[in-house]
Amino acid sequence: MQQPNSQAASDCRVWRRRLYLMLEPTARQAPGLSITNRCIAGLILLATILTLLETEPVVRALAPGFFITAEAALAMAFLVEYIGRVIAAGEDPRYRGWAGRLRFMASPWAINAFTLRLLKLIRLARLGRFSNAIGDLYRAVRGRRYELTVSLMVAGLLLVLTSSVIYVLEANHQPEAFGSIPRALWWSVATLTTVGYGDVTPVTPGGQVFAGLTAIVGIGMIAMPTGILAAAFSDAMQKRREQGEEYDND
Amino acid sequence: MQQPNSQAASDCRVWRRRLYLMLEPTARQAPGLSITNRCIAGLILLATILTLLETEPVVRALAPGFFITAEAALAMAFLVEYIGRVIAAGEDPRYRGWAGRLRFMASPWAINAFTLRLLKLIRLARLGRFSNAIGDLYRAVRGRRYELTVSLMVAGLLLVLTSSVIYVLEANHQPEAFGSIPRALWWSVATLTTVGYGDVTPVTPGGQVFAGLTAIVGIGMIAMPTGILAAAFSDAMQKRREQGEEYDND
Amino acid sequence: MQQPNSQAASDCRVWRRRLYLMLEPTARQAPGLSITNRCIAGLILLATILTLLETEPVVRALAPGFFITAEAALAMAFLVEYIGRVIAAGEDPRYRGWAGRLRFMASPWAINAFTLRLLKLIRLARLGRFSNAIGDLYRAVRGRRYELTVSLMVAGLLLVLTSSVIYVLEANHQPEAFGSIPRALWWSVATLTTVGYGDVTPVTPGGQVFAGLTAIVGIGMIAMPTGILAAAFSDAMQKRREQGEEYDND
Amino acid sequence: MQQPNSQAASDCRVWRRRLYLMLEPTARQAPGLSITNRCIAGLILLATILTLLETEPVVRALAPGFFITAEAALAMAFLVEYIGRVIAAGEDPRYRGWAGRLRFMASPWAINAFTLRLLKLIRLARLGRFSNAIGDLYRAVRGRRYELTVSLMVAGLLLVLTSSVIYVLEANHQPEAFGSIPRALWWSVATLTTVGYGDVTPVTPGGQVFAGLTAIVGIGMIAMPTGILAAAFSDAMQKRREQGEEYDND
Repeated sequence: MQQPNSQAASDCRVWRRRLYLMLEPTARQAPGLSITNRCIAGLILLATILTLLETEPVVRALAPGFFITAEAALAMAFLVEYIGRVIAAGEDPRYRGWAGRLRFMASPWAINAFTLRLLKLIRLARLGRFSNAIGDLYRAVRGRRYELTVSLMVAGLLLVLTSSVIYVLEANHQPEAFGSIPRALWWSVATLTTVGYGDVTPVTPGGQVFAGLTAIVGIGMIAMPTGILAAAFSDAMQKRREQGEEYDND
Repeated sequence: MQQPNSQAASDCRVWRRRLYLMLEPTARQAPGLSITNRCIAGLILLATILTLLETEPVVRALAPGFFITAEAALAMAFLVEYIGRVIAAGEDPRYRGWAGRLRFMASPWAINAFTLRLLKLIRLARLGRFSNAIGDLYRAVRGRRYELTVSLMVAGLLLVLTSSVIYVLEANHQPEAFGSIPRALWWSVATLTTVGYGDVTPVTPGGQVFAGLTAIVGIGMIAMPTGILAAAFSDAMQKRREQGEEYDND
Repeated sequence: MQQPNSQAASDCRVWRRRLYLMLEPTARQAPGLSITNRCIAGLILLATILTLLETEPVVRALAPGFFITAEAALAMAFLVEYIGRVIAAGEDPRYRGWAGRLRFMASPWAINAFTLRLLKLIRLARLGRFSNAIGDLYRAVRGRRYELTVSLMVAGLLLVLTSSVIYVLEANHQPEAFGSIPRALWWSVATLTTVGYGDVTPVTPGGQVFAGLTAIVGIGMIAMPTGILAAAFSDAMQKRREQGEEYDND
Repeated sequence: MQQPNSQAASDCRVWRRRLYLMLEPTARQAPGLSITNRCIAGLILLATILTLLETEPVVRALAPGFFITAEAALAMAFLVEYIGRVIAAGEDPRYRGWAGRLRFMASPWAINAFTLRLLKLIRLARLGRFSNAIGDLYRAVRGRRYELTVSLMVAGLLLVLTSSVIYVLEANHQPEAFGSIPRALWWSVATLTTVGYGDVTPVTPGGQVFAGLTAIVGIGMIAMPTGILAAAFSDAMQKRREQGEEYDND
């Protein structure tokens, strides 16, 4: 015979279990995210956009009260989520009991600061429907980290060499822009990456000829990592195909 | 014994069949487009170019009467095509009889508005000789939509992070250009995509060092989708080769 | 018994044969170009560079007599080559006899005009040591001409669409730069190709948001042909490897 | 019975051997670099950065004494390394004895000049943990040198042709920027590489239309080497995979 108290405790445990499955993405057996976590992801995205927009005086002036209200509402929602998480944490053996709850409250996932929210969003995205694609991209980039590091080293060497040469060629004519190698680096990085702001350009014939050569070398600097990544993705896809897996079956 | 009336109806039906085959690209058995549809595609292209040129006052001033005449002539041609289509629609079981014709006249393909014309042009191009190539490109891009979405998400994250950092570094020196994160986004997107307009550039040493790093990261942002698409196309071509198909046999 | 005259004619024929082998790259059995043709290629390159430099007033002022002398010397050299070619043409059955020589003198390869010289240079390069590489590149590009055409069509469509939208958004604020769709095309092409001159940029918030989206779409526009060419080259190399051929054995 | 003198000579040889193994990267049997060489690589990197920073007056003014002290300390460290190398060179049969030591002191690796230091750094990097990745990149680029040379030749031809055409179209309107073909080259190289400084842009309608076409052609010019390198890397990885080797096992 169950006593009423025990019955209530059992009910409570069932509810805690449901809450845990709703809030903890790793506890879920079906692929993808629960509806609760999708809403939380949406709220985090909304809070991020609001934080970004709030820095703009023009937008702030348009709706002075709106941001305060919205921030308060979002803070309330995240507080509710936070309390829910602390309650549900009892399902996890690591955070059981009062000591465990306090430990959980100090863990990074429980905190609602701005940068941690973004981390939480990335964590949710990783566990969502893009998990395969993110994993493949990550492995492809990681598997070629040596080649990518080497091409970054080549890029660094080219930056130092080209800025040294342009410094020699242009320092006397444009001391403000090319008066030292660190200053000339600003032009070098803009040219080798083909960004080409154009706020600083060589004016001497020698400097312009060298800038032209630098721009052509810059194509190679872009082609290098592109080629490495293309080969890595091609590789990863062939592996996936050989294993008979596809993304399309969802 | 056929009555003259029935003979005329039979003749009429043969002509309607011919008109249908001339105008409806999906009814054609031979590959490519009929001569009539090629002419219509040419006229749509001409009408589009005229509509674009007409917005330029200098061009309009050069030949004031020409545009009115040309637009009228094209409108007449599209009206003839429209009437032809309504007549030929009787060959399609869906649009038979008076009710069917009215239904056809309300369907998007029959209407001659500007944006719909472009859609019609795309539809014609898809059924023409480029159908295999368009299909392959479409499947290659669609088959990698998760990876491409992930790389767009990475791009979005990078845009937010770089504009937040440059806002902190440059807001005090250039409030007009970097006074808020949404404003700083304009610089971020120009740098990460390596467009580099140069209308807004950082001026503080810290901002310039960070801009250099952003430009180098931007190469990776371009290399990612390029690598994914390269692998997808490589994949699609291998499949096609294994099936023994080639584009060149036309 | 040979007569002296016949002996001289025979000698003459031997010399003509040697001249023909020296001057006609297709007659050579060994791979690469003869020394004579290498010298001619060098002279054409020199003449081209001189023609380009001659347009610059500063360079012309530096050495006023030099260009006249150099041009005269080069003209003399090409005249000698021309006479040599006309004599050697007798080895080719098509140009035998007086009528044949006149026909040869009218053929494009014999003429020494500026643009034809460049064509001759390309022809020599194609027959030289890069013949395999040029052939592979040509076949790779040609074999994917449909996909490349489709991606050019996509580019054209994007140019028209983006310039139409930016025209709507910016025409009132910057009539000089965005006052018509053809004018707005100048900005569109600079943004979608990621060239980004920066002489014309949107100033309204809506225009800047749209420009950011256009710049991101521009990455895809660059990734498309890059991916197609990468796959085509990968394909061509695999074919070559399967045939056991390599470039490195020279 | 060993004499004390001989004992000292033997001790000396053991120490010389240790010094040699510490300093000469090629003598090491374990993969990677010895701790001594890592420190030397770090010092070279530090000296390079100091040399670059020293050119900047603002930085020099901030810490006038620092640079002199740092340069002196680094010079001392490199002198110690130099003496160590001269002593250890006795282990190498080529540099044994007094004559050998003098020969070694004149060899490029022993000299500590600025540019040679960078060469030494590259040599150390090549022998370090990135040796496989550097070797693969080098072989991939070298194996496609003909195709890359051809695409450079195509780039050169495009530069000459586009600058000639823009010279014809713009010379009368902007003599300063497009007054000669060599001047127009500055615009051509900025456009075809998609750097797009924007300091010089065409202003006539004809020039702008041609510039748009040039920018689109520029995409192909970037896609060419990217595609070639992507195929080469893909090739190199497949070879490595077939041999069962991977980078990841370190």
